[in-house]
Amino acid sequence: MIQLKHLASILLTPVMVSTLIGTILVSSVQAQPKEVTAPSPAPKAAVAADPLASWNDGKAKQSILDFVKRVTAPGTKDFVPEAERIATFDNDGTLWAEQPLYFQFLFAVDRVKALAPEHPEWKDNEPFASLLSGDMKGALAGGEKALMEIVAATHAGMTTDDFEKVIKDWLATAKHPTTKRPYTEMTYQPMIELLTYLRANGFKTFIVSGGGVEFMRAFAEKVYGIPPEQVIGSSGKQQFEMRDGKAVLVKLAALDFMDDKDGKPIAIQRVIGRRPIAAFGNSDGDLQMLQWAAAGSGPRFCMYVHHTDAEREWAYDRVSHVGKLDKGLDEAKEKSWTVVDMKQDWKRVFTFEKTALSESK
Amino acid sequence: MIQLKHLASILLTPVMVSTLIGTILVSSVQAQPKEVTAPSPAPKAAVAADPLASWNDGKAKQSILDFVKRVTAPGTKDFVPEAERIATFDNDGTLWAEQPLYFQFLFAVDRVKALAPEHPEWKDNEPFASLLSGDMKGALAGGEKALMEIVAATHAGMTTDDFEKVIKDWLATAKHPTTKRPYTEMTYQPMIELLTYLRANGFKTFIVSGGGVEFMRAFAEKVYGIPPEQVIGSSGKQQFEMRDGKAVLVKLAALDFMDDKDGKPIAIQRVIGRRPIAAFGNSDGDLQMLQWAAAGSGPRFCMYVHHTDAEREWAYDRVSHVGKLDKGLDEAKEKSWTVVDMKQDWKRVFTFEKTALSESK
Repeated sequence: MIQLKHLASILLTPVMVSTLIGTILVSSVQAQPKEVTAPSPAPKAAVAADPLASWNDGKAKQSILDFVKRVTAPGTKDFVPEAERIATFDNDGTLWAEQPLYFQFLFAVDRVKALAPEHPEWKDNEPFASLLSGDMKGALAGGEKALMEIVAATHAGMTTDDFEKVIKDWLATAKHPTTKRPYTEMTYQPMIELLTYLRANGFKTFIVSGGGVEFMRAFAEKVYGIPPEQVIGSSGKQQFEMRDGKAVLVKLAALDFMDDKDGKPIAIQRVIGRRPIAAFGNSDGDLQMLQWAAAGSGPRFCMYVHHTDAEREWAYDRVSHVGKLDKGLDEAKEKSWTVVDMKQDWKRVFTFEKTALSESK
Repeated sequence: MIQLKHLASILLTPVMVSTLIGTILVSSVQAQPKEVTAPSPAPKAAVAADPLASWNDGKAKQSILDFVKRVTAPGTKDFVPEAERIATFDNDGTLWAEQPLYFQFLFAVDRVKALAPEHPEWKDNEPFASLLSGDMKGALAGGEKALMEIVAATHAGMTTDDFEKVIKDWLATAKHPTTKRPYTEMTYQPMIELLTYLRANGFKTFIVSGGGVEFMRAFAEKVYGIPPEQVIGSSGKQQFEMRDGKAVLVKLAALDFMDDKDGKPIAIQRVIGRRPIAAFGNSDGDLQMLQWAAAGSGPRFCMYVHHTDAEREWAYDRVSHVGKLDKGLDEAKEKSWTVVDMKQDWKRVFTFEKTALSESK
């Protein structure tokens, strides 16, 4: 079971694995966004002039503008050459939502349903039997073992090319359980503007996330403008094979690397090889990445997205089963890092609000 | 010893570890370049006009020009968008020389000498005692174990920042044993022109090498124009620590990843996430990378550098202790891949020849 257990870590942090089942079984959930109507359109000229149009004026927005101005002013002591303007972003809870569960886990559940016709034996075996009959409670009664079997059944045993197609097909059709929107529209509009703004100022933007690297690459370029080679994530082991004279990589049911907590600076060093000058996260799993960015010389920018908006999004921090932000919140205060108060600082939250706006014109 | 054994793999392929000692003890070496005089300067206009000026006209050069023309012609069926123009290069023996031994091993030997004052115990312990008295034969009499102790003593136990400084200091002063040139001038001028030519045509160039990733990053940007985040290599495990409130990564004496053979396509998938359309190597250790590139759809370019020039460089292939090219040579012929005959195809070999040329003006 050790292999399967590790594989599950690709989707779920260890803490989460142990608390997940209980959470799923809790019927009373925190305030969740429903299908929303588009906000009043902002004046068009203002939108065009402001690279961070979805951010309300305030300390958070100002700190971003100040930092970028500081590192891009030639001839000053804080000037940073373009090649060193590395910015790293967590994904779940930082660039897109992560409630009620990591979207990659919701993918795994849908994938079991899609694969069921090829696995007639599943209707007599847990956790698949319960899951297929819509009984999530029963499916997860088997605890960690059940969870891992779901992960193994959905993330291994196929080539990397096949897996990419599976994810892309899912993203094209799947809808979020409460907003009923495609997952790729549950990205945060203010953060997409931030990515664009940084790149316009010579930054190279990277994702550094606990999510599966291949899962994220399936949408990161289209949705965030971040190409595959700038996406760092957790990964499973792979095996090189020649099939009919053609090279393929087959995904195995074993963890290769868990890109969370200490793993984040380690992956940054291994893959990027340069210390970021700016790092963005939303949970304690991002703390070491922020610490690593902060420890370099010269100007540094560390930012936490704090989920404070129970109405438009979700409100959670110190005791959450996903995106727990406890130590990080204390350290951010102590170190005067930027903490985004989602409710106060964001004019709009989701990309789909913008889409609705565009559509209404 | 297993940890140390694996660590040695960062520098030396398994085959090499077992054959290295014998090789070092062999006194009669293959023809080696001596200090050379500059070749007659080429006409200036011709150099400026030809992006591959150090390549002789012939099949190899033409195949490169044809491929680049083919994938960059808009509106044709073979056109490849810029984002997908990924080119991967092996380093040792492909971008710079690898004789009489991988340069990273020569670094390790020099490093032992530099560290000796801090290790008085070494003068009574092998392999260090012999190594320090200049007796390489005695130093390596301990076989694999001796080799691994050298690697552990020189590549672990320090922070990544400290290690970077150590390598850069070494590269700035060390000289190759036969040419007496800095190692960074033992890069291949025709390959540097090729890198530049590909980038000028919208390619993104990556190193994918069995060498240590941090070792290569210390010179890749300056020498090849390849930034740290486009260098993929072997790596040791690292540990995240807070020291005096500052985040550091400490290099451990254990292998994390061996970027050779099957490891190359696996690393390409993990780090780049896109299949290269062009791949360049010089040994059987690169074969899987070339097979992986070749197996994609659309136009593909695979190239082997064949070391055929015993006078200007070294001549070796099927039975060499470094850069063994046997299966790869057969497969290249079978698949009609480009094989560069160094003696025939390269007008100049080393970058230092160009330097000498510039200096003579």
